[in-house]
Amino acid sequence: MSLSLYIDILGTIAFAISGVLTAFKKKMDFFGIFIIAFVTAVGGGTLRDVLISANIGWMRNTTFIYVIMGATVFGLLFRRQLGYLRKSLFLFDTIGIALYTVIGVEKGLAAAYPPITCIALGTLSACFGGVIRDILCNEIPIIFRKEIYATACILGGLAYFLLLKTTLSSTLIVILSGLVVIAVRLSAVIFKLSLPSLYRSENT
Amino acid sequence: MSLSLYIDILGTIAFAISGVLTAFKKKMDFFGIFIIAFVTAVGGGTLRDVLISANIGWMRNTTFIYVIMGATVFGLLFRRQLGYLRKSLFLFDTIGIALYTVIGVEKGLAAAYPPITCIALGTLSACFGGVIRDILCNEIPIIFRKEIYATACILGGLAYFLLLKTTLSSTLIVILSGLVVIAVRLSAVIFKLSLPSLYRSENT
Amino acid sequence: MSLSLYIDILGTIAFAISGVLTAFKKKMDFFGIFIIAFVTAVGGGTLRDVLISANIGWMRNTTFIYVIMGATVFGLLFRRQLGYLRKSLFLFDTIGIALYTVIGVEKGLAAAYPPITCIALGTLSACFGGVIRDILCNEIPIIFRKEIYATACILGGLAYFLLLKTTLSSTLIVILSGLVVIAVRLSAVIFKLSLPSLYRSENT
Repeated sequence: MSLSLYIDILGTIAFAISGVLTAFKKKMDFFGIFIIAFVTAVGGGTLRDVLISANIGWMRNTTFIYVIMGATVFGLLFRRQLGYLRKSLFLFDTIGIALYTVIGVEKGLAAAYPPITCIALGTLSACFGGVIRDILCNEIPIIFRKEIYATACILGGLAYFLLLKTTLSSTLIVILSGLVVIAVRLSAVIFKLSLPSLYRSENT
Repeated sequence: MSLSLYIDILGTIAFAISGVLTAFKKKMDFFGIFIIAFVTAVGGGTLRDVLISANIGWMRNTTFIYVIMGATVFGLLFRRQLGYLRKSLFLFDTIGIALYTVIGVEKGLAAAYPPITCIALGTLSACFGGVIRDILCNEIPIIFRKEIYATACILGGLAYFLLLKTTLSSTLIVILSGLVVIAVRLSAVIFKLSLPSLYRSENT
Repeated sequence: MSLSLYIDILGTIAFAISGVLTAFKKKMDFFGIFIIAFVTAVGGGTLRDVLISANIGWMRNTTFIYVIMGATVFGLLFRRQLGYLRKSLFLFDTIGIALYTVIGVEKGLAAAYPPITCIALGTLSACFGGVIRDILCNEIPIIFRKEIYATACILGGLAYFLLLKTTLSSTLIVILSGLVVIAVRLSAVIFKLSLPSLYRSENT
């Protein structure tokens, strides 16, 4: 089993549990919670694959369906204890979005899309599961309001294309641009950074 | 005209009218009501066909567009009298989801997807028209809260794959797994069954 | 640069700015506002292309990504002054939907869909960017409540197929059916027309 598959599974678990928690707050039943966990985990990649007419991963490789089922049951049983796992889940989530960003960029490149479209595909792979989760839960998507997430993915995607102009090996480019995503997201959370507000100077 | 086409049209009418009633409560105009009726009726199948890259039925076979137009006009004109038809509409809806579940499973099988993906495709065909309806009406999808619907479809899909291991003819498998969907849904409504609540023991 | 590309860019700007204004009211950050501008501008065409399995324009031709970025920045910087541009933006928007309607109809025809499906594709191209915008902003889509927009597109699509039965040149058919969209929309706004309300006679 490759490292990227490990990271993918950890990221899937973190995404699914974030779905479980959002759905639980909305008082959904087990089926609803599972579906929200599912779309949070695979929604971004599925939308990417529909846009580029690629095969949708989870439909052939059922591992992820079982991982999400397991994460849903785990998340429901231990939801009171999840606070203790918050740092681990945040870490899984962060390396997860780094992986999904790079996978999205590389899938775009493989289909010969222009760099800016590839960066969009990477960002979408990492972020739109959460967008679909929030829409299904009747909320304005959180990343449209506080978007540490998306900026990290965009900068990681930009790093990928800058590094592509160097003589670095493709493995190193993947790792370094993934680390950019992780570094930006971690710094943003540690130093409580966010985009400059557009609303400060106004009375509302 | 085959029996399955008859059932499909009856199911489409029941789905469309459920869309009309939801949209009417939201004070939409005629165009909005028609669109909600339309996505309720064909949304699940359309999403399924996008996911498996199949041709989308209603785009070539316009019968369903006219059926939905007719159901919209009928639903609006007779909305005060629809209470009298409630049992018929419920029956059409129930045999409709049985048909859509089996169609979804068989479309998945034809494209060689694994059984669990086929069951997901069947459930999605039957249930996601209603999900899209509720999102467009700015509601949390009803089946994520009270999901008699989805469980019936999942059990029907499971029955399909269990029966596939027997020596029964394919026609009989289709009919029996469809009857499972109908039986589960009818029992759930008659005996007021629902999934065990996850929220009972908590103060909220 | 052809006339239709000019119109397309003006329409894209008008759509993007309508997205900026809606997202700004919801207190989104820059990323959220840009995404809403983006889906408002390209969402309808993207959904159409997914439904007919065509290539998605903005993914290959990045001009539109930059146009939408520019319109987002412009819209944010000059949002207090946009009132002065209201008539121009309304005009851009109106000729934009005329163009998108005709493009949608012609894409449907090129893929040999039946006329009613082509009209649906034209209407969807022109209107569903706004629908996705409203869903992402957690609102019931405005065109489902006050749909001057959609009726104009449907009538323009009908005009296209009526004119197709004449001996007029294809260029003239495009121009005339586009003018029908513009004329209906302008008249509706000037004379404050809307569909007859379904709710007048009821106490609510």
